[in-house]
Amino acid sequence: MILDEIMSANREFVGEAKLPVIGHHPRKHLAIVTCMDTRLVEMLEPALGIKRGEAVEIKNAGNTVAEGQDDVIRSLVGAVYLLGVSEIAVIGHTNCGMANVDTAGLAAKMRSAGVADAAIAELDLARWIGSFASEEENVIKTVERIKSSPYLPAAIPVHGLLLDIRTGELTVLVNGYSKD
Amino acid sequence: MILDEIMSANREFVGEAKLPVIGHHPRKHLAIVTCMDTRLVEMLEPALGIKRGEAVEIKNAGNTVAEGQDDVIRSLVGAVYLLGVSEIAVIGHTNCGMANVDTAGLAAKMRSAGVADAAIAELDLARWIGSFASEEENVIKTVERIKSSPYLPAAIPVHGLLLDIRTGELTVLVNGYSKD
Repeated sequence: MILDEIMSANREFVGEAKLPVIGHHPRKHLAIVTCMDTRLVEMLEPALGIKRGEAVEIKNAGNTVAEGQDDVIRSLVGAVYLLGVSEIAVIGHTNCGMANVDTAGLAAKMRSAGVADAAIAELDLARWIGSFASEEENVIKTVERIKSSPYLPAAIPVHGLLLDIRTGELTVLVNGYSKD
Repeated sequence: MILDEIMSANREFVGEAKLPVIGHHPRKHLAIVTCMDTRLVEMLEPALGIKRGEAVEIKNAGNTVAEGQDDVIRSLVGAVYLLGVSEIAVIGHTNCGMANVDTAGLAAKMRSAGVADAAIAELDLARWIGSFASEEENVIKTVERIKSSPYLPAAIPVHGLLLDIRTGELTVLVNGYSKD
């Protein structure tokens, strides 16, 4: 049972941990928008040199701002106006599970799991799931959607980077400081 | 410049890191839904005993499934049907920045940053931002919204936990294995 494993690990952690008391305003005034991928767990932060207390982290499937789904923008509004964030980094990665999703296969799996045909039909699944053809283009698109949000300050730098999931190497795709 | 700091830290990381090649199906078949809070960075995983490769992580402002904002459900659909996730844990924390948000103050800050009055008026800001009165109730509500999604398997266990942000101690609010 995973819940028991977690609670047992937690008792050990609480017995040993010495957590400094810090505030919730990130010290680097940075918000990271990245992917839920398990390979980024305990890897993204050392690969970026980011420590506890320095940045907020928003994570979803494919580091996308999917059409009609405001949640990343909502979180960034909170980060900027409530937590003093003044810079945003979108970090995609190679070999992303949201690239080229087989939508028909996904629909078949949902049906097998008992999801009603009518519920699936209601979604425009290919669009809704937020799949993309290229990890690079997806990062650039996410940067553009954040930049074009009417709810965020126009001047906030939004960077776009791609992380090589095998080596951890970052490539800058969009430098948010440049004016063009 | 943060971007330079990140790229410099990354060069060091790539030079030193020995990353095992692992797949993107989380080994514990677990999806975690938690908050973007910077105090959870490099703290949540040791507090839960979760390692790289074991769980996917979805993070937003306040670990909420905000009304009309499907993004967490979308990510969970990807996690379940594309990555083999069979269990979900919603982890809220004490002292959350999304509790009792001063909506009028938020609107004033948005206006000061140049956001158009019309854009703010379009949002029902108090609802849209996803603020809540109690961290505990918010975890329970998020569990309920996930459980009631028509797109996820009805039988998937969804746990709800609250993490004490000062000590790291977890409390189980919803045990997803129990049938009532």
